[in-house]
Amino acid sequence: MPRTVARSAGAPLVFDADDPRLAAAAWSRLAEPGDAVAGALVAQLGASGALRWLVDATVDPDRALGGLRRADEDGTDVPPVRRAATDRLLSAVGRWAPRLASLDPRRELRVLERCDGTLLVPGDEHWPRRVDDLGVAAPFALWVRGRADVEGWSRRSVAVVGARAATAYGERVAAELASGVAERGFTVVSGGAYGIDAAAHRGAVAAEGMTCAVLASGVDRFYPQGNDGLLRRVAGTGAVLSEVPPGSAPFRQRFLARNRVIAALTAATVVVEAAHRSGALSTARRAAELLRPVGAVPGPVTSMASAGCHGLLRDAVAVCVTGAAEVADLAGDLGREAAPPPPSADTVLDRLGPDERLLRDALPVRAAASVDSLARAAGLPPRRVLTLLGGLERQDLVRREGGRWRRA
Amino acid sequence: MPRTVARSAGAPLVFDADDPRLAAAAWSRLAEPGDAVAGALVAQLGASGALRWLVDATVDPDRALGGLRRADEDGTDVPPVRRAATDRLLSAVGRWAPRLASLDPRRELRVLERCDGTLLVPGDEHWPRRVDDLGVAAPFALWVRGRADVEGWSRRSVAVVGARAATAYGERVAAELASGVAERGFTVVSGGAYGIDAAAHRGAVAAEGMTCAVLASGVDRFYPQGNDGLLRRVAGTGAVLSEVPPGSAPFRQRFLARNRVIAALTAATVVVEAAHRSGALSTARRAAELLRPVGAVPGPVTSMASAGCHGLLRDAVAVCVTGAAEVADLAGDLGREAAPPPPSADTVLDRLGPDERLLRDALPVRAAASVDSLARAAGLPPRRVLTLLGGLERQDLVRREGGRWRRA
Repeated sequence: MPRTVARSAGAPLVFDADDPRLAAAAWSRLAEPGDAVAGALVAQLGASGALRWLVDATVDPDRALGGLRRADEDGTDVPPVRRAATDRLLSAVGRWAPRLASLDPRRELRVLERCDGTLLVPGDEHWPRRVDDLGVAAPFALWVRGRADVEGWSRRSVAVVGARAATAYGERVAAELASGVAERGFTVVSGGAYGIDAAAHRGAVAAEGMTCAVLASGVDRFYPQGNDGLLRRVAGTGAVLSEVPPGSAPFRQRFLARNRVIAALTAATVVVEAAHRSGALSTARRAAELLRPVGAVPGPVTSMASAGCHGLLRDAVAVCVTGAAEVADLAGDLGREAAPPPPSADTVLDRLGPDERLLRDALPVRAAASVDSLARAAGLPPRRVLTLLGGLERQDLVRREGGRWRRA
Repeated sequence: MPRTVARSAGAPLVFDADDPRLAAAAWSRLAEPGDAVAGALVAQLGASGALRWLVDATVDPDRALGGLRRADEDGTDVPPVRRAATDRLLSAVGRWAPRLASLDPRRELRVLERCDGTLLVPGDEHWPRRVDDLGVAAPFALWVRGRADVEGWSRRSVAVVGARAATAYGERVAAELASGVAERGFTVVSGGAYGIDAAAHRGAVAAEGMTCAVLASGVDRFYPQGNDGLLRRVAGTGAVLSEVPPGSAPFRQRFLARNRVIAALTAATVVVEAAHRSGALSTARRAAELLRPVGAVPGPVTSMASAGCHGLLRDAVAVCVTGAAEVADLAGDLGREAAPPPPSADTVLDRLGPDERLLRDALPVRAAASVDSLARAAGLPPRRVLTLLGGLERQDLVRREGGRWRRA
């Protein structure tokens, strides 16, 4: 008894599924971002093979599942999809099938072309290899406006992310951090949202550095609308990209899924401001799971906008970063970007040794004192006091009055 | 050829060196705080024995050193002083000897008595055993005004320290933290200085909690003068103590030495605000060396007054603390003081599952959509969409219009 899983069962595809670019683009429309079942299927059969299998499965799921099992047994490696239970696969076919009837990646590619965009699929020269660390949750394709050499510009990159409900403090810090790391040759990657994201993009643009916005919606229409001008500038000098095709709406789940791409694409992630349940925290946690360094910018403990950052610090998910040098240290090649040490001693008094300090403290400011009295006060042998007084006199820190001494 | 190391050589003591309390008090005057050579000598010979040895050593150092060596060979344990080279010991005798002639702890005890103070020496019932973790750098005595049951009130205690040059933010946070931990039954220990220290004492006093100021000078005269009124209140309801006897001036080195007592006396140390080279950082580092938990309160990265705290976080010397509950968690008995978890999900939307969220995002706000169209938009099987719509309808999140649906 064959099961049917979709109304579009058996509808023929209107494009060439054997074209690997069209097939990859098709999967970026069929499956929601991060759909691990689709990822496993595409990993096993290739985008084209997975697409043909899906069409078959909408006609006769049992036969398609049987074919998949036989294909498994031929292979030498353990295919990841074998681990996905049959139920999960059938449920996935049910998810994907409703989108099959209207599927035409050529249409979406035409929209991309009108935006001067570029489609990247896994294996392309400019495909960013870092996102493959997401495994079966990696994007099927990247729809890019602006600089399409993503592998090139993302190798040296930092995600600077944070809350939309940012404070003036957070926006200022985000812009300064972004400027600073952009000046050091890092691409600043963020989500194009209001608040911290926008400040980060602006900071990088202001420094004439490279920046990239990773959107949760298609790249044909910039979201949010209020950032349209900024995102146009970002696309003009940097890049705006998305894993969902043109025409896709910015669903809430897609924002969360988008965050994993930001985390995977960059060498390190820095959260500037985030309340306790901000989406930016998911970017940080994904980055940590991917073993990317994570930084959090502290703020006043009285500011709820920093509470999420402080949580990351408390949970040791993130290290504390306070400036661009420290962020570069986090994201850069080991040793090459070492943050400068904190400011060192610089006053005459700082350069004194412990005994000299004791003596200097013991020296009276007004009436001068004898060497014996200084020795008692400082807790030092009189002979040592005499030697030290000579040194302090050369530094103009003591004044001799007859046989007695006081501070200069 | 006997060496002479001090002008006071051979002067007889004007008090009974065999009285262990007088001898301990004498060492707290003879040696600067944290003098490890004195600590090792007293550990080996006892305060009285070490005092008699010192008098001998000012007369004939070689004979005294010889006697020490013979005493060593009699002992079964390896005495710590054997490791101190002869040179270090002779140099120490030179440091201590100038103070020997005028030494009279009875005079200092009389001053303490006039302040209603109490002398504590190691082994006393109320001697805080935690400070013995300092080993040979432990205080020889504690001169206490106010509550002298130091062992009692210090067992549950937190050091709240920070910069004198504090900001309004830092003082506010210090006062609130101190109030909060005092209300939880912790003694708030600090250094009685301007800025964070004073705010911490004030916060504890305001909460009618227990607080203690550890001074770098003698307890007969409160330093700084501007905090005289506050320190009087602290001594009246809590305690003011010092390891140096009445009459001792607040030398710079004594501030640093004092910090080790604050670190050792308390169950945990929290730094509220500290610039890069603030003395409060030495308290934190000493506490960490003593394996006490250390917390640092973050602040704006644009504030130099928080730079030292951020440095402690970066170096993983301290964990990030943002409120009294977290400080109690740090200082309290394990498990007993667990900080509350961050606020959890509390809106209807937060309680939705992933599929419900996808569907809710896909629901149009104005014109209602069919189940098939919703299935395509959400990437879900039509049957699942129907089930989910039922659930969302019960939560008043969707509205049915004929056979079509839109957001409620």
